[in-house]
Amino acid sequence: MRVLERLDELYAIGGGAGANRPHGSPAEDDAHRLAASWLVDAGLEVEVDRHGNLFGHARSPRSAEEVSDAVSENCWAGSHLDTVPQGGRFDGALGVVAAIEAVERVGIGSVVVFRGEEVGCIGSRALVAAGDPLPRMFLELHVEQGPVLAERDAPVGVVTGIVGYARAELVLEGRAGHAGTTPMAGREDALVAAAAEIQRVRDAALAIDGAVATVGQVEVEPGGSNVIPSRVRLSLDVRAPDARRLDALIASIGFEPGYRVEPAQFTGAAPQMFRDVVAARDLPLVELASGAGHDAGILASAGVDAAMLFVRSLNGGVSHSPDELSSDEDVALAIDVLADALAATTR
Amino acid sequence: MRVLERLDELYAIGGGAGANRPHGSPAEDDAHRLAASWLVDAGLEVEVDRHGNLFGHARSPRSAEEVSDAVSENCWAGSHLDTVPQGGRFDGALGVVAAIEAVERVGIGSVVVFRGEEVGCIGSRALVAAGDPLPRMFLELHVEQGPVLAERDAPVGVVTGIVGYARAELVLEGRAGHAGTTPMAGREDALVAAAAEIQRVRDAALAIDGAVATVGQVEVEPGGSNVIPSRVRLSLDVRAPDARRLDALIASIGFEPGYRVEPAQFTGAAPQMFRDVVAARDLPLVELASGAGHDAGILASAGVDAAMLFVRSLNGGVSHSPDELSSDEDVALAIDVLADALAATTR
Repeated sequence: MRVLERLDELYAIGGGAGANRPHGSPAEDDAHRLAASWLVDAGLEVEVDRHGNLFGHARSPRSAEEVSDAVSENCWAGSHLDTVPQGGRFDGALGVVAAIEAVERVGIGSVVVFRGEEVGCIGSRALVAAGDPLPRMFLELHVEQGPVLAERDAPVGVVTGIVGYARAELVLEGRAGHAGTTPMAGREDALVAAAAEIQRVRDAALAIDGAVATVGQVEVEPGGSNVIPSRVRLSLDVRAPDARRLDALIASIGFEPGYRVEPAQFTGAAPQMFRDVVAARDLPLVELASGAGHDAGILASAGVDAAMLFVRSLNGGVSHSPDELSSDEDVALAIDVLADALAATTR
Repeated sequence: MRVLERLDELYAIGGGAGANRPHGSPAEDDAHRLAASWLVDAGLEVEVDRHGNLFGHARSPRSAEEVSDAVSENCWAGSHLDTVPQGGRFDGALGVVAAIEAVERVGIGSVVVFRGEEVGCIGSRALVAAGDPLPRMFLELHVEQGPVLAERDAPVGVVTGIVGYARAELVLEGRAGHAGTTPMAGREDALVAAAAEIQRVRDAALAIDGAVATVGQVEVEPGGSNVIPSRVRLSLDVRAPDARRLDALIASIGFEPGYRVEPAQFTGAAPQMFRDVVAARDLPLVELASGAGHDAGILASAGVDAAMLFVRSLNGGVSHSPDELSSDEDVALAIDVLADALAATTR
């Protein structure tokens, strides 16, 4: 299947274990060049905007009658080609190769490849912030990056929205001291305090349905094996499906977010098209929130009728890892659903 | 007081915050050169051994009658001049300037300045390993680096021995996953496991009298703020006053030491001289184990009759820090005790 070969080609760029195409790297540029060549092969009109985002426009709708220009020419499908270091084969890349496949197949709409999604959706944010023309609809196919669809035996799922999230740095203070000469009783060990904090963060998220909280980075000062830690910095990433639960989680942990993004809801005609196609194909309809940020969320917040279709992740839903996996059959089926939805924009 | 001026001069070497004379640095060499000049000023015969350790020998005992050559010529007093990065003003340096003061005052014995004490007692170990002549006695004055003497209102303390210690790396394994898309329930977060381990280590040490355990370094993989940690490495440093308690602590935490040093006991005539002088001066007699390794422990393990006198540390006993502090009065008194003990080697 051509889509799988193209995923292999993208995966090989950058070298090393996993996918290595961080934003701003030569590998991201190489991936964009490769995708541009596929757009040309698909007979699409290639364009690169001033933010570095790549487009491939279908030039000739199959017939003037079939297509309502106002809608179809304003429907984008796509995703991104940058990755985290040692990322997976599907994250972003699948949405791009699938969009090329679908747009070529139905001859409708535009493929879009955004820059720097993994570093805060730089490309789509830049486009929105610059006041550049936005599409009326945006369809993004993406791996789930979680275990829900596998648990519910569903090859694809329709995304209801993007969770809101907040980030902060938690700092625990203590008092440095010699690891050998400072009795246990009088210690103020910042790392022991941090250990309790890490567990408190976990417990706070466990108590709120659909919420998650993660400490992924730890920095210990002074960092000597024989010195009691005097200061520990923890990264904190908290997410919840709606503002109410996000507020509750932040209040429960008790911190001042350094960065907060409100939840985005997909409520327009675009997600309804996905639901309709899923029903028409007799597939189980699973609806779920996305725990990760995506370009579709940025466009939705800017007023675009956006929708996302998730493809089932295997291996427990692991993502941002070389172990990220979706089956060939699920990928093929998801592309069919995307193409059907794209075709439905003409109705 | 000349001793305090000399501590200032040593502290100024290397620059930056705190004392910065790591082993092998030009700053350690500069400190040795400065100390050699003080040895010359004190009328001592300067010698540098093949390991870089510096000596200053008293050339003329006050009278042949007063001095038993077999003992006095074989009594060394001293410490080290290397420091940890951003170390304190007293650690090592005090023992050296005090020894110069005492040997000059009583005209007996030799000053010794060991190399690389902070990096595993390199200088004293090299001397022992090479089979070079060892003294019969070794007296080391040192800051306590802990709060015990301050808590017991004692200006000085007589050290009973050096704790044994063991080091290891603890590794916690988990499963990486996207911080937003992996529900809390199914997570295998290596950092949450590490947090429990850090508390378990602390509790194990709290349960054994005189034992300490410290996690001073944490390394999180993959280390992204939005990735669930898959692996965490913790440094572990455990110490106990005797082999029985060290064994119990290691068994309680449950690890295989990567490195283990047996406790050293100070049980000869040398510590008895310190106790006698403390009694003669009507000072409170506090005896305590050293939680840190010292050159005196290396010499004791090689059969030398070694002893250490601790000087009260202020600021909660903080050491390996610019906040390390002992009072001028305590320093002066400790030097008097050292000189008295040195003089007593002639009786």
